[in-house]
Amino acid sequence: MYNKISGDILKSLKEILGDEFVINDEDNLKLYSRDYTENLSFNPEVIVKPNTTEQVSRILKLANEFKIPVVPRGGGTGLSGGALPIYGGICMSMEKFNKIIEIDKENFQAIVEPGVITQVLMEACEKDNLYYPPDPSSKGSSFLGGNLAECSGGPRAVKYGVTKDYVLGLEFVTPTGEIINSGARVLKNVTGYNLTQLLIGSEGTLGVITKIIFRLIPLPKYRKVLLAAYNSIEDCAGTVAKIFQSGITPSSLEFMEKSAIKAAEKQLSKKFPNSEAEAQLLIEVDGNYEESLDKDIEVIAELVTEQGAFDIILAEDSQKMNEIWALRRCIGEAVKSISEYKEEDTVVPRSKIPELIKGVKEISGNYGITTICYGHAGDGNVHVNILKDKLDDTSWEKNLDTAIREIFKLTVSLGGTISGEHGIGYSQKSYLPIALGIEEIALMKNIKRTLDPNNIMNPGKIFL
Amino acid sequence: MYNKISGDILKSLKEILGDEFVINDEDNLKLYSRDYTENLSFNPEVIVKPNTTEQVSRILKLANEFKIPVVPRGGGTGLSGGALPIYGGICMSMEKFNKIIEIDKENFQAIVEPGVITQVLMEACEKDNLYYPPDPSSKGSSFLGGNLAECSGGPRAVKYGVTKDYVLGLEFVTPTGEIINSGARVLKNVTGYNLTQLLIGSEGTLGVITKIIFRLIPLPKYRKVLLAAYNSIEDCAGTVAKIFQSGITPSSLEFMEKSAIKAAEKQLSKKFPNSEAEAQLLIEVDGNYEESLDKDIEVIAELVTEQGAFDIILAEDSQKMNEIWALRRCIGEAVKSISEYKEEDTVVPRSKIPELIKGVKEISGNYGITTICYGHAGDGNVHVNILKDKLDDTSWEKNLDTAIREIFKLTVSLGGTISGEHGIGYSQKSYLPIALGIEEIALMKNIKRTLDPNNIMNPGKIFL
Repeated sequence: MYNKISGDILKSLKEILGDEFVINDEDNLKLYSRDYTENLSFNPEVIVKPNTTEQVSRILKLANEFKIPVVPRGGGTGLSGGALPIYGGICMSMEKFNKIIEIDKENFQAIVEPGVITQVLMEACEKDNLYYPPDPSSKGSSFLGGNLAECSGGPRAVKYGVTKDYVLGLEFVTPTGEIINSGARVLKNVTGYNLTQLLIGSEGTLGVITKIIFRLIPLPKYRKVLLAAYNSIEDCAGTVAKIFQSGITPSSLEFMEKSAIKAAEKQLSKKFPNSEAEAQLLIEVDGNYEESLDKDIEVIAELVTEQGAFDIILAEDSQKMNEIWALRRCIGEAVKSISEYKEEDTVVPRSKIPELIKGVKEISGNYGITTICYGHAGDGNVHVNILKDKLDDTSWEKNLDTAIREIFKLTVSLGGTISGEHGIGYSQKSYLPIALGIEEIALMKNIKRTLDPNNIMNPGKIFL
Repeated sequence: MYNKISGDILKSLKEILGDEFVINDEDNLKLYSRDYTENLSFNPEVIVKPNTTEQVSRILKLANEFKIPVVPRGGGTGLSGGALPIYGGICMSMEKFNKIIEIDKENFQAIVEPGVITQVLMEACEKDNLYYPPDPSSKGSSFLGGNLAECSGGPRAVKYGVTKDYVLGLEFVTPTGEIINSGARVLKNVTGYNLTQLLIGSEGTLGVITKIIFRLIPLPKYRKVLLAAYNSIEDCAGTVAKIFQSGITPSSLEFMEKSAIKAAEKQLSKKFPNSEAEAQLLIEVDGNYEESLDKDIEVIAELVTEQGAFDIILAEDSQKMNEIWALRRCIGEAVKSISEYKEEDTVVPRSKIPELIKGVKEISGNYGITTICYGHAGDGNVHVNILKDKLDDTSWEKNLDTAIREIFKLTVSLGGTISGEHGIGYSQKSYLPIALGIEEIALMKNIKRTLDPNNIMNPGKIFL
């Protein structure tokens, strides 16, 4: 199917990049064999580290000619195995594309290379009172190119949208080596097909992104956080849609069930307020006028109380807000440290969250599996972590796949889909037909074939 | 190249739709031969009016089999000739797809057929305190399907984004007749390629949209309008970027030069405030707290004065605001009634507007052509209307194309592009290579071929 990396190919790669940036020692191959997705590992045959678009193009032309798989790699923080070189071949690390080329303070735009770490861009923007809102929990190490590939979200997506909503244009290299500039430095654009949005969320299967034009927005001047504790998961989840119906759009609205908070307490060795509550909502509002936020908070406090919250904690100073956010942000890691696990990234219309969580608990009950639910409730995006915990190997292997299928079928029946911000990648591809019709998948595959006739670009991802 | 509509084809169409909805009398063919684009006219051979997705699919399968062009048609208000049946064939009017299927008040979503008039959806939403922001000036008669096809914008795009930013999913029929459901009823989604965004802005060349899932937002409770009059076009245009730098994002920021305002005065037979000013800005802010808007207005008023505005008019009651908006909204029609014209839809980074307008005036001066500039300055989208006015036919024909090319080259050199919200369609396609590279156009054409191997779907649009 694919050719192996021969001595001649290695030589050609070294001619393109210099010896230093063509790496194939065992330690490095191991290092680049994983991302953050469960315990999956596939060695590439060689790691290359280009730093110009021209080099990326030459490598792809070579790989296309000799039918060698190429897997683009960002920070390696993906949660669906998008960066795993499952057929070996070339791992193309984008770590040397690490420059913020320009922050345009007049037009609120940033021109950035894909290897820039998400948080580095955020902080650079904040210095100029500008805001790049998408904040995946991996922001401290994820690359922006990876954020585009997986269309990352994060807690602020509920008000500010996801990665795709901040990309105005791209430079990318197609699997056959053509360099394409899509979009422009403008906020509206209907000049041909939207190739920019075709690439975003395509998980590295349609090309390698080499430059990004981001739009930015003004940094909001104030924010406030409210933590609402409930004795009933259902009441807590049921509050979510009601908050929006008040006319307020929080900048974050996160749901955490007790077991998630307990795991976070353990991870941080810290006691949290109301950690015996069955579930809590973390609600943040932001804006330019503090009085308006106070009024928003007042409305929200009244509403959550009406909906059954037994305690409310308000955080207005940075330190207190950061403490609460640290709790929320560590849940992902905390839950994973409990036992072997699989993480699902369900997303439904937000009024359906109570039904989703109830269904998840029923399904996990039926199969003797432990689930911990938390996530971005404001936009209906609930991370369902399925833990092996004390289950024996046979039951785990037997039941896991069936349980996931039932959870996803429920998600889709509620008007939702199977990935909100993690992607399909490798680990979710067998579930894609639950969410998409045969015709839709066929059309996507045809588009893939059009751009990548030899299927060298991140093969074995998204589609079965 | 294409086959003509034979008696057999007509018979098949009537079998699919019933006699009543297959129309080919001369009067109707004439009626459906135009849209709002200049004085272009191409008769279709037959008009069909399906009202189910199944019918659309059957018609497309038939047309694909017999190589007959199909041009989907909405309200016929397009400004780049997207709905013109330039090769004859079938005009598929979507006027019977006119149902708002559901407004989901809990999740702020609307499920809508593509033949619903934009304003009808807006008003239905407002009844439930919900907001569908995209408001092209044709909103009173444009169809939502057409808004998607051309990715319409309007004055509110500067704060709220364009049509594409409100579409979560689609049902559409491919040129070969497959029915595809893309997206889901969710705010975030990375489950396969973004076919939804591939269809939006594709100007009816990749399929026929039969159902739309819109996201909505809460209706802002208050708005206020400020009109700032300047004696210098440059000072006026130069203010635009500075307003955003204050941290305020107006809900609209419109630029109008004197000749545009004069044309509107004539059209409405009304005198407007400061209509002798060289240029004016219409600035609207909106939000949930009136005090915050007052503060925004205060900052803006100070800023425009600093930047050279000689008079400011504040409108806080609906009637006064509506009067000002009526002035702005009629400019398009007003300018067109002056003489033969061509409208360009330039868009640049907003700080480049002064350079763009200066350049347009120089170019039009060089060719003895009259230009009137107005539009959505906040997002850098300036409509340049080129008028024949008193120019003789020979000079008009000789100079128009050259002048447009120069204007577009300038636009692109400023980081902009040649269409912000009107599309390329038929009237702009010869200019596409000014904005896009050979490789980008080739890739778009490959995608088109993948979906539409017989090139039956709105042929002769976008690409040369």
